[in-house]
Amino acid sequence: MEQNDLTKQIKFIEEIDKVKYIQRRTKLFHSERNENDAEHSWHLAMMAIVLSSYANLKIDLLKVIKMVLIHDIVEIDAGDTFLFDKTKSHDNTEEEKKCAERVFGILPEKQANEFFELWMEFEEGISSEAKFAKSLDNLEPILQNATNNGGTWKEFGIDHKTVYEKKKIINEGSTTLWDLAKGILEDSVEKGILEK
Amino acid sequence: MEQNDLTKQIKFIEEIDKVKYIQRRTKLFHSERNENDAEHSWHLAMMAIVLSSYANLKIDLLKVIKMVLIHDIVEIDAGDTFLFDKTKSHDNTEEEKKCAERVFGILPEKQANEFFELWMEFEEGISSEAKFAKSLDNLEPILQNATNNGGTWKEFGIDHKTVYEKKKIINEGSTTLWDLAKGILEDSVEKGILEK
Repeated sequence: MEQNDLTKQIKFIEEIDKVKYIQRRTKLFHSERNENDAEHSWHLAMMAIVLSSYANLKIDLLKVIKMVLIHDIVEIDAGDTFLFDKTKSHDNTEEEKKCAERVFGILPEKQANEFFELWMEFEEGISSEAKFAKSLDNLEPILQNATNNGGTWKEFGIDHKTVYEKKKIINEGSTTLWDLAKGILEDSVEKGILEK
Repeated sequence: MEQNDLTKQIKFIEEIDKVKYIQRRTKLFHSERNENDAEHSWHLAMMAIVLSSYANLKIDLLKVIKMVLIHDIVEIDAGDTFLFDKTKSHDNTEEEKKCAERVFGILPEKQANEFFELWMEFEEGISSEAKFAKSLDNLEPILQNATNNGGTWKEFGIDHKTVYEKKKIINEGSTTLWDLAKGILEDSVEKGILEK
């Protein structure tokens, strides 16, 4: 017997609770406590609302918010991949794709397809919404590390050049936010919390 | 010297990190771990997206999402108030209003006003968006308690009638979700995890 749509949707809502257990490397602001993916996604959605006027291109804010809210659901099976991991690519992995198919697949077909496409669009990073969403996703840890005496930069011995190269993608979504980020990185070098 | 808008916005983004420390009484699904307000707000935003078609009235989904994302920011100073608290009203308190003014007031004036008005609209619960947002806010703990052997119902000795009376507000935003909730409450009584 086919489950009705609402039953599937409630099952999905229960399944994504697992996002709250996925620990990121970055810590909360001024804190030793790791952030989890649900908290991170909430914070990015708030940043999308507050900072939307700085997007380089015209964006559909609702779409950006949906993207950042769902972008880490694929980590339920795959786990979080650290941006500066030297052994594993941070890019869209097969493992994440399988997880997207499994978890979004709990939903009624039309919604499952919408979520899968939104996630793929985010991963590809081509649309104006995906570019801006990626700017936010890359900016948050810079703000956090700057309040945490260098945070993951210090912890994993990452220097200014490496951060700069990984983070310049912010510029594609927002020149203003990239200028802000560059300023924070330079200040961090001056303060000695980011290696030159 | 007046701070520029972006400086204010980044200060706000840092300030609202505190939402991640506010513990709710309800626990995660199938869990002993308390949920925090950031996780809760993320989950409600996801529910808004997934369940929007069940709203009784036409809703602006972006507005509902904004409401649920910001609705607990006022607890940064005021703390979480338990729905079934017998000594303190769950309603919009003076303390929450002061906190809203302080935290939203960090933002540039136009955004501060928008957020304050959105929060007030949610609290008043009159608009179709506020009604639907409140339905979601009231539904989530029912789903959680049902997977937690009664959760806060058991913990605080709350019976079916009390839950029913407090939760029937769900019906104002969504008859479908209220029917679902009533079914879960009845099942819970049958299973012996909610007192008759």
